[in-house]
Amino acid sequence: MAVTLPALSCVALCGGTHGNELSGIYLVQETLKNKRKGEAMEAVTVVTVISNPRAVQQRVRYTETDLNRCFTYAMLSAPVSERTPYEIIRSQELNSLLGPKGSGQAVDLICDLHNTTANMGLCLITYADSDWICLHICKHLQMATIPVRYIHYDIPLSEAFSLESVGKHGFAMEIGPQPHGVIRSNIFTAMQEAVHLMLDWVRLFNSGTQFDEGSVDVYTMVKNIDYPRDPYTHNITAAVHPELQDRDFCLLYPGDPIFLSFSGEILRYKGKEPLYPFFINECAYYEKGVALLLARKSKVKIPAIQCSRA
Amino acid sequence: MAVTLPALSCVALCGGTHGNELSGIYLVQETLKNKRKGEAMEAVTVVTVISNPRAVQQRVRYTETDLNRCFTYAMLSAPVSERTPYEIIRSQELNSLLGPKGSGQAVDLICDLHNTTANMGLCLITYADSDWICLHICKHLQMATIPVRYIHYDIPLSEAFSLESVGKHGFAMEIGPQPHGVIRSNIFTAMQEAVHLMLDWVRLFNSGTQFDEGSVDVYTMVKNIDYPRDPYTHNITAAVHPELQDRDFCLLYPGDPIFLSFSGEILRYKGKEPLYPFFINECAYYEKGVALLLARKSKVKIPAIQCSRA
Repeated sequence: MAVTLPALSCVALCGGTHGNELSGIYLVQETLKNKRKGEAMEAVTVVTVISNPRAVQQRVRYTETDLNRCFTYAMLSAPVSERTPYEIIRSQELNSLLGPKGSGQAVDLICDLHNTTANMGLCLITYADSDWICLHICKHLQMATIPVRYIHYDIPLSEAFSLESVGKHGFAMEIGPQPHGVIRSNIFTAMQEAVHLMLDWVRLFNSGTQFDEGSVDVYTMVKNIDYPRDPYTHNITAAVHPELQDRDFCLLYPGDPIFLSFSGEILRYKGKEPLYPFFINECAYYEKGVALLLARKSKVKIPAIQCSRA
Repeated sequence: MAVTLPALSCVALCGGTHGNELSGIYLVQETLKNKRKGEAMEAVTVVTVISNPRAVQQRVRYTETDLNRCFTYAMLSAPVSERTPYEIIRSQELNSLLGPKGSGQAVDLICDLHNTTANMGLCLITYADSDWICLHICKHLQMATIPVRYIHYDIPLSEAFSLESVGKHGFAMEIGPQPHGVIRSNIFTAMQEAVHLMLDWVRLFNSGTQFDEGSVDVYTMVKNIDYPRDPYTHNITAAVHPELQDRDFCLLYPGDPIFLSFSGEILRYKGKEPLYPFFINECAYYEKGVALLLARKSKVKIPAIQCSRA
């Protein structure tokens, strides 16, 4: 007996939440162009959004503060003054447009398009390991040509800081490797394919198709590791070790090399448990004190689902 | 009979001319640390320079204008006012420190360390195809583990716009691929190896070693190609074609694919002559209207040389 869930009548496709992650920006612009050509009369409304137009225009991640850390309840309800950073104001605008977060008026699904310099393939990043919509979409995306994984940040909705938390369902679609400020055709095409597959799934779901039960490997974030740094200047003193670089989602064992210092010294993983590294050497995380994240993998069983409206 | 040339008593090793190209910055800092440890009592004086400290601090290419376009005679002698961009002021400071450009007081050799997002391996970029010092260093660097090539911009000294033009001899040492704002251990190590090989060569040269005649493949820049753009928004409408991406220095023939548009259309190379592409999809060149550069290759014969002082 399938679990019944409401239709996904309105899907938001967002790009440019970080203004230098180009695949999503050009994909949203291209989708908009095709909508104008009149291809959009269908069972699902797709809202396209350039989340941070100022940052996009300047080709930077953000102008004053990282927009994709501004969607906690506290920040969405913070009073605004003349000195409030642009991105906080913009997060409240986006919350009005696509939310309000946690309410019945919120869009049904947010897909927020991101790029990473890490060799992560395609990842759906969510705050839930029991959101059957997101998990079924991830299962459906397994037919994409790029490896697709499901990452879970175990953070309550009130503290969930990123744009996709505003929707009833939502995920960041993260694809790499691609340098920020650069567009690589293979990464653009992979994102385009995944967005098409996702929208195909939503149309099938809305039209009453039943999706079978199954399982999805879920990578739940456990902790992060910073670069070794000079205690006085705070400058990094080592780079990610060549044997770890680009090895996202390859199990890291205690004693494996993590860093190679600029003077040639190898630094090793001191954890007691083998874990899966990801976001290895992501450009934007130097300033956040993160050289890599570590996850535990589990197999999550998902029930058969069907749209309650059909 | 060897050509005799003066000793290279003073070499400037510069990093951070672009503040988000990290290999050179960390290599200069590491070199400085080792100099402090007292390893530097030798036949050549190595001056280490962080060229654009403000940009390095902010992790951006530049703060107001591209420093590495500010070393023409016109800009080096431009009057300074309150509204002069920081980088023009800084170029004049660097010209005082390492030049003056074109004078007998200039340092003997400038090696300016750069990174590119393009898959270029290691390149020495110069304004001369008959500078026996630069060409012999390039020949010596062939023993490095990374492919090493010699690029020639055929521009007169007065118009030469980049930092290395301030020295009596000079080149940019460009290494990629590496995303800007990221440091990859393999690229750092390759740069470190090349700088050591270069300084070894300088020491041998200064101590009287004769270097045999030979030849070097020189890639002379012929023209550049911009991305296809929307005539109204000026936004790019295509990415570098997957068959060209990462194929720097692989001969491009008339009719070969260059771009794949976001709507799926292939655009081809319309030139009549096969040429060598480089700086393919370099992040910093989007704003300069350059998707790739094209070069003609020639074999330049270089004479045996020896230091006149020895």
